[in-house]
Formats: sequence, structure tokens, C-alpha cells
Amino acid sequence: MESFGLSRRLAAEALGTALLLAVVIGSGIMGQRLSGGNLAIALLDNTLATGAALVVLIWIFSPISGAHFNPVVTLVAALRREAPWRQALTYPLAQVLGAVLGVWTAHAMFGEAILQVSAASRSDQGQVLSEIVATFGLIATILGTIRFRPGSTALAVGLYVAAAYWFTASTAFANPAATIARSLSDTFAGIAPSRAPAFILAQVVGALLAAAVFGWLLKAEETP
Amino acid sequence: MESFGLSRRLAAEALGTALLLAVVIGSGIMGQRLSGGNLAIALLDNTLATGAALVVLIWIFSPISGAHFNPVVTLVAALRREAPWRQALTYPLAQVLGAVLGVWTAHAMFGEAILQVSAASRSDQGQVLSEIVATFGLIATILGTIRFRPGSTALAVGLYVAAAYWFTASTAFANPAATIARSLSDTFAGIAPSRAPAFILAQVVGALLAAAVFGWLLKAEETP
Amino acid sequence: MESFGLSRRLAAEALGTALLLAVVIGSGIMGQRLSGGNLAIALLDNTLATGAALVVLIWIFSPISGAHFNPVVTLVAALRREAPWRQALTYPLAQVLGAVLGVWTAHAMFGEAILQVSAASRSDQGQVLSEIVATFGLIATILGTIRFRPGSTALAVGLYVAAAYWFTASTAFANPAATIARSLSDTFAGIAPSRAPAFILAQVVGALLAAAVFGWLLKAEETP
Amino acid sequence: MESFGLSRRLAAEALGTALLLAVVIGSGIMGQRLSGGNLAIALLDNTLATGAALVVLIWIFSPISGAHFNPVVTLVAALRREAPWRQALTYPLAQVLGAVLGVWTAHAMFGEAILQVSAASRSDQGQVLSEIVATFGLIATILGTIRFRPGSTALAVGLYVAAAYWFTASTAFANPAATIARSLSDTFAGIAPSRAPAFILAQVVGALLAAAVFGWLLKAEETP
Repeated sequence: MESFGLSRRLAAEALGTALLLAVVIGSGIMGQRLSGGNLAIALLDNTLATGAALVVLIWIFSPISGAHFNPVVTLVAALRREAPWRQALTYPLAQVLGAVLGVWTAHAMFGEAILQVSAASRSDQGQVLSEIVATFGLIATILGTIRFRPGSTALAVGLYVAAAYWFTASTAFANPAATIARSLSDTFAGIAPSRAPAFILAQVVGALLAAAVFGWLLKAEETP
Repeated sequence: MESFGLSRRLAAEALGTALLLAVVIGSGIMGQRLSGGNLAIALLDNTLATGAALVVLIWIFSPISGAHFNPVVTLVAALRREAPWRQALTYPLAQVLGAVLGVWTAHAMFGEAILQVSAASRSDQGQVLSEIVATFGLIATILGTIRFRPGSTALAVGLYVAAAYWFTASTAFANPAATIARSLSDTFAGIAPSRAPAFILAQVVGALLAAAVFGWLLKAEETP
Repeated sequence: MESFGLSRRLAAEALGTALLLAVVIGSGIMGQRLSGGNLAIALLDNTLATGAALVVLIWIFSPISGAHFNPVVTLVAALRREAPWRQALTYPLAQVLGAVLGVWTAHAMFGEAILQVSAASRSDQGQVLSEIVATFGLIATILGTIRFRPGSTALAVGLYVAAAYWFTASTAFANPAATIARSLSDTFAGIAPSRAPAFILAQVVGALLAAAVFGWLLKAEETP
Repeated sequence: MESFGLSRRLAAEALGTALLLAVVIGSGIMGQRLSGGNLAIALLDNTLATGAALVVLIWIFSPISGAHFNPVVTLVAALRREAPWRQALTYPLAQVLGAVLGVWTAHAMFGEAILQVSAASRSDQGQVLSEIVATFGLIATILGTIRFRPGSTALAVGLYVAAAYWFTASTAFANPAATIARSLSDTFAGIAPSRAPAFILAQVVGALLAAAVFGWLLKAEETP
């Protein structure tokens, strides 16, 4: 495996996260516009586009930057000493910057105002628990496949996120950079800024929980 | 292949089955809530989430426990002497426990009462035959791919279950642990407890039938 | 590769084709019942179930019998001398028998009368051309992948058939055994017996055309 | 890898592009006819058929011609000196010819007038930007996977195009040959001829931009 310098790795994280958020927001707008108010169909379209794009984006960018696109993925990698802490401090900036640019690109493509703030309260009961479960599952997917089936991790993440859009009450943000960026879009996939901190905290909790559980489950047996 | 101790294998069976049932029940609730009563769309959403999650969960947990998540899969493995009988006695307990916890987690995420009992009769003509066929197909999928294409078994199971949600009249429970747990949810994917025993019996019959047929079909030719 | 005796190969063709037709007919009934008359959703459900099951069935049965499930696939294999003519004479019988049993199994699961005759005329303009194109594409998919990407043929056939349900006006029967069996079901996926001969003739024409075109396209260059 | 002569490579480009456009137009007609005016369901059907077929067509034809099916893909390959310029001059002719024949085949299958001209204005704000983004993403998908995961490029392109149907406001034509051919179909997937030049220019811009960005991102590090 070649190694890529930090500038190209940061560019990869920013560009990949930008494309991911352009897909999340753009397909949300398209789904809502075409479905005539049928939210199940709008979310189905949103799900398929997001899952498909995520697989492709991880395939494209993982050889360069690891294709985290998500601060809690970067955090877990740092905690597991699989990446230097310098990366843990710079990747999230690139991810948030890219995510916001991706949201704005989606707005521009669909003729929406570029600058928006979401009014989607997403405060139903169980949403915080949903984000804990959703992020637990995401980190479980990564840690659980990277060791025995590394060639399948991208596909696993895409499939997992597609499922998580449906089995969690929050539609599984599971990503602090995406949460921040989605607070800047008053469209189908938005979230009110006032709700973002609770979501982000829940995501960190879910990620740490998964790192602990899978650290134990997958720990190599000690040979006496 | 490393080997994992029984405690971690049981934890993997419980956690994997819990996540599977959280997806089955959670995506059923989400699909029904969003689809405004269009059952075809609700079942489609439920199907995609379940199939996608099943692939991922098998990838994650198969190196640890074999990723059975299903007592009849454990039973067939024991009958084929591919696993010790001690496993056949403990795995189902972990599977049922995990399945119930998964149902309750889904209820909590969606703000539903945790403790419920299903009232879905599922007594249409042909449902028991459907469970025989569904479980026959599930075991056929596992036995038919594990020998010549072991790397594809997870994907095959996910694809098979997605198809089976639609081509059987029962939507293919095909799993006694899931049947028990789904009797504790009065939501889209529930089943009345009074119907569970007939379903479970049909599942055992279908599994044994598949084990017999594929035992013959795939038996190595004797060389004279 | 082991070799399997003729009785097991015929059993594999019959069982695989039976399961395939149970999926085609069963998911058609389920889709139509649940979709409340929305044919696009019913066909979408039918498509996903058929495509998913086809991939799995080819994975299961191809090591045993080649997983033809289709007399024109058997015919092309014989013409290309990839299989003995004895197979070309016996496989289609097993395929038709299995297909009919699969249709009847679907009827039994859904509480429909076992014996039915379809009244679906499917005589819109362009249906015969559609069957030529659909079968041309199916044989192209098999011949075009089997040489350079044999591990992908099953997935390719499933994806192709899913697409063909939508881009042909006939929903792509592309299989004489399935055509005969589907004439015995007056449900979503049926076809009137009077229309079957024209469909079957078109399927043979499409298959021979693809065999000729891909015979030329993929012929090994002669080295002087 | 064998090499195929120019006549067979041109035939492969023409036939593959013909089948691709038959799918795009045919599944658009089918989706619109069956969905009773629900554009989200029609586009979903169109998306699944196109994405599935694209994967299969690339698998079939890539060993022969590279499976470009798209003049900007051919252009980028020539700019990167991965293909001779003679190819860059002849492939697009085969692609456009094939694309038009594919549209006409779809019209014939569905009993539509063969010769049509689209009246779909597709002049909403942001459509040209959408084509730049869509084509940038398509070329990024190809260049980003071909080096580290060449076996996944076909699947990546199919998944990407499926996502791009939804996250761009134009439904992602991203292909000058398809744009020209789709201007000859006054059906779901058509585009008015007067809009085609702006789309094609945007596609070239997006492709060149991706070639530049990924040329830098993936450039091998110089070893001192």
C-alpha cells in the first residue's frame, strides 16, 4: 500500500464527505419532491442513494485516507492506536468543512437557497437512544469486518447504513460531521441545530460502547 | 481461523440476534408509520432493512460464533456433526434471550411500550406450509453455498430472506427464536403467541427436510 | 470440480426451477395483494424477490447441475458442445416438471386453487419483440460473463433479470419452462396458454441470435 | 488479457450502448405506465433497472472494448494515454449509433412511434451544475476504483449511477451519447434537443475536472 501525504489525505476526507452529504441532502430533496408527500417512498429513495453512494465513496477514498468521513470513526481509530493522534485532530475539520460544502452543493443543484437552518425538531421519544444504537452498529460493522473480511467493509457499511435509516427512530445520523452539516439544510434530511448536541453526544457514546464491546469480543486469545 | 471461547461465542449469538430483531421490528414500525397504510411499501422497507442487516451481521459475527442467530440452524449443524452438542444446547438460549432484548430495544427507540403481546393471528390458509417452504429454502441456502462458495453464504442468506419475505404467505419467519420474540411485539412484524408453536414446528420440519435433501444431493460420490 | 450423476443433476434442475417459479408466482401474488392495485409497486416487489432468489438458486445448484432452470440455456450449452446432447433432452423435462410444481406450491402457500389457467393475454404490440430482446440479453449475460468473470455469472443473471422485468414490454419471461408453468397460474405473473407458443418461439430466436453474436464477439483470435 | 480487433471493439461499444439505452428508455416507459403518475416510484424503477443493467453490461463488454459506452469516458482514457487517439475518434461514433438504436428498440418493444423528439425542457435551475457534478462523480468512480479495486469498477459504476439519478437535479445523464439519444424519445427519460448542448458541455467540464483532481489525488509519490 502506498502512503499518501497529509494534504492529500485531508483533501480526500473533505471531498468524500462533501459528496456523501450532497447525496444525503440531494436525494432527500428529490425524494420528497417526487413522492408527493409519501414519506416512506421518499425515505426509501434517500436510503438507496445514500447506501449506494457510501459503498462507492469508501471504495474510492479508502486507499488514500481510510475513508472515515465521520469524526467518531476517526476517534475510534485513534483510540485503537490504528492512526496517529495528529490525524484525529485534523480529519474532523476536513470532514465538517466537506460536509457543509456538500450540503451547499446539493442546495445549488436543486435551486434551493444556499444558506439555510433546519427546523426539523427530531425530538420524538427514543431519538437519542436511536443514535446510540445506530452508531454502536456502525462501529460494530467496521470493527467486525475489518479484521476477517477487510474487502467487504465498504459494502458492509453501505448495507448497514441502509438498514439503519429504517430500524432507528432517528434515521441514523451516526456521524457528528453529518449532523452539523444537516443542521444547515431545512429539507427532508435536516435537523434543528438545537438538537445537534444531544445527537452528537449520543453518537460518541455509541461509538465508545462499540469499541469496548468489540475490543473484548475480538481480542486475540492469549496463548499460555 | 482462531477459536473463540464459549462465553464470547454465546455473547456473539445473543448480540447478533438482538441486532437482527431490532432491525426486523424497528424497520417494521418505521415502514408502517411512514407508509400511511400501504402494506406493500411497508413490507418492502422491512425487507430491504432485514436483508441488508442480515448480511452485515453474518459478516461480523460468523468468525466468532458461526452467526447462526437461529435455533434450527444450530440444530442442523449439530445433526451434521459440524458443531458439538453442547453448543446446540446453549446457543438457542442465547438466541432467544438476544431476540427478546432486540425487540425491546426497538420498542424503546420508537417510543412504544416495552412489554407487548402480539395480536396478529397470521392464520391464513397456507401459513404453516409457507414456514416449511421458507425454512427449507433457508437451510438449502446455507448448505448449498457453504461447501462450494463459503465466501458468499452471508450474501446468499440476506438475498434469500429478502425474497422469502415476498414469496411465502407468512413473510418467512423461518426462525424459532425470532418467532418467540416477535410474539412479544404488537407491531407490523408481530405474531400472536398462540400461533407460534405451529410456526416453530413447521420450521423444524422444513429444516430437517432440507438437511435430508441436501445431504443426498451434495453427498460426495463414493469412489470404487 | 466433482461430478454429479444424472439423477442428482436432474433433481437439482427440477428443485431449482420449482423454487424459482414458487418465487415468481408467490411474490407476484403477495405484491398484488398488498399493493392495493398499484402495479408499479407490485412489479417492483416481484422484481426484487425474483432477482434475489435467482442469484441464490444459481449459487446453490450450479455446482451440481449447472443451474440452467431454462430450456434455452440448456439448448445453447448443447449447441456450443459444452454439454452432452443427452442432457439437452432430459434437462427440459425436469425444468418443466419442476416449474409446474413450483407454481402449484405457490398456489398452496397463498390459499389459491392449485389448478388454474391464466387469462392474461399479454398481447400488446411489441411483446414478441420483447421476448426476443429479453432472451438475447439473458444469453448474452451468461456467455459474456462465463469466460472472463465466471464467479459473477449468478449475480449478473439476477441483476439482468431484474432489469429485464422493467425494460421489456413483456416483463421478460425469457424461459420456455417458466412460460409453460406460468400459463397455469391466473395470478399476477400468469400468461394465457394461447400466447405461450409465440413467446417460446421468440425465446428460441433470441437465444440463437445471442449465441451467434457472442460466438463471433468472443471467438479467440487465430494466431498466424 | 486477449486483445480484440477494432471491428469487434466497435461492435461491443455499439451493442453495449444500445442495450444500455434500451434499458434507460424502456424502464422509464414501463415505470411511468405502471406507476399511475407517481414520479418517485417511476424514477425508482428506472433507477434499479439502469443500475443493475449497467453492472451487467460492463461485466460483459469490458474484456472486449473496455465498456465505455460514453464519449467522455473515452475522452478521459485518451487524455490519460490509456487508449490510442484512434479509439477516441471512432468509439463515440459507435456509442451514439448504438444509443440511438437502443432508444428505437425500446420504442418498438413498447409499441411507441419509433421516431420521436423529446419535449422535456429540463431547464430547472441547477441542471447544468447537476450535470457537472454527476459527470465529475462518474469519472471519479472510474478513476478512483480502477487502480486499487479494478474488480469492483463495474459494480461501483452501477451503484454510483443509481445514486446519481437521485442526488442530482437532472437525474444524471452524465453521457453525451445518451444525451443525444434521449433527445429522440418523448418519454419519461427524454430531454429536449435544445437542452442537449448545455448538458453535453457540462458533462465535458465535469469529466475534465475529475481527471485533474484525481490525477493529483492518486499521483504516485516521487521517491527521491
